[in-house]
Amino acid sequence: MTETYPDQSGMTPVARVVSPYRENFGIPRQPGLVPAAKGYLQMLPGFDDPRAFEGLHGFSHLWVIFGFHQCQGKWRSRVRPPRLGGNRELGVFATRSPFRPNNLGLSVLTFDGLQQLNGELRLNVSGLDMQHGTPVYDIKPYVPYTDSVPNALGGFASEQPERKLDVTFSHQAENSLLASSNPAQLRELISQSLALDPRPAYRQEQAVDRVYGMRLDDYDVRWRVQDGVAIVDEILPIR
Amino acid sequence: MTETYPDQSGMTPVARVVSPYRENFGIPRQPGLVPAAKGYLQMLPGFDDPRAFEGLHGFSHLWVIFGFHQCQGKWRSRVRPPRLGGNRELGVFATRSPFRPNNLGLSVLTFDGLQQLNGELRLNVSGLDMQHGTPVYDIKPYVPYTDSVPNALGGFASEQPERKLDVTFSHQAENSLLASSNPAQLRELISQSLALDPRPAYRQEQAVDRVYGMRLDDYDVRWRVQDGVAIVDEILPIR
Repeated sequence: MTETYPDQSGMTPVARVVSPYRENFGIPRQPGLVPAAKGYLQMLPGFDDPRAFEGLHGFSHLWVIFGFHQCQGKWRSRVRPPRLGGNRELGVFATRSPFRPNNLGLSVLTFDGLQQLNGELRLNVSGLDMQHGTPVYDIKPYVPYTDSVPNALGGFASEQPERKLDVTFSHQAENSLLASSNPAQLRELISQSLALDPRPAYRQEQAVDRVYGMRLDDYDVRWRVQDGVAIVDEILPIR
Repeated sequence: MTETYPDQSGMTPVARVVSPYRENFGIPRQPGLVPAAKGYLQMLPGFDDPRAFEGLHGFSHLWVIFGFHQCQGKWRSRVRPPRLGGNRELGVFATRSPFRPNNLGLSVLTFDGLQQLNGELRLNVSGLDMQHGTPVYDIKPYVPYTDSVPNALGGFASEQPERKLDVTFSHQAENSLLASSNPAQLRELISQSLALDPRPAYRQEQAVDRVYGMRLDDYDVRWRVQDGVAIVDEILPIR
């Protein structure tokens, strides 16, 4: 039996998230907003026996309970949700803020199947809203008869955030897409991620023609906003 | 600032569950199956500032991440879900079994409002499926646009478990109901809990006229099953 150990959260990670989001900037605020955000949960030694997943193939979605590891140990009773423009304070328990006691996150992801590759056990997922390297503490099947409450009242987050920006690609960026390993997938990932307008709220108010850099998978994506359109100038492979 | 401390899970409890289910026997297997199962989350010192909940009143449902504290430290890769009659093995990550790594539970509860009483801060809830005293590690608003996936495929747990038993009360039990502090509420709680047939699967196959005792709130409920009907013989106040 493989020895397993708790991390600084006090719990024992069972998996690590492999995600196109390599940095905090640009991560969707909830799962499912970017269906093209594909990745996998890499099961860790001691939890990588395929027999521990028998029966999961019949489920289309998974719950992932994970750690907001970059906020570890930090919490505050009052937070400013980005949803409200970052200028209104609410109680932390009324939000999905990472700055919460125990720093636990909860996301429903689309389950794209189990895979054994290079001696690793992977749970392929899409709709990711987690940073690469995020520790996972539990994986549960999404059971619609109990987990789905379509008529629930959603308070200040009642409506799905609207798609805010149209996205276009420069000729140079188009050429980089064509040279990538999966052009259609990379185009969708960039388009869907930028459409949500990842700029901080105070920047969205400004008309400044600023260039942003955002790391997605192994690319540095350079973009700016002009008249409500995100223009992807360059897509630079990293390394 | 009140000092707070982790428990044996490694995490810091923020609340305790106050529930009519005082013992393991009879707890519904998922939340929402017994709407009359009302109780509250008693916020613990350090987490009992009402300002930490501002904005929550607009939400009708809550996520509670809790500890299956009676299974602490125990997990197995293969389990026998009661749903399948307890005679088929599945992988633990394909189920909501408590015998899982980190022993985390996840339930959506109906939120019946915040209350300050006797210096305590309470979150009133219904549809409970947790034992009295359960430690709570996080409380989040249920956000329907991201949490509700009505068309998700639910594998072996696709259908809501059917109500299995009709429930009747003896004259003696009716008299005890009338003498209780809230007869209608107690009747609903007993009826809804017994209708799910809490007997172990192997007992359900048998026709034995056995008397069961089940503690609900401060009552010892004595009942048996005859021809598919649960008959409540006695409702005995405890103490």
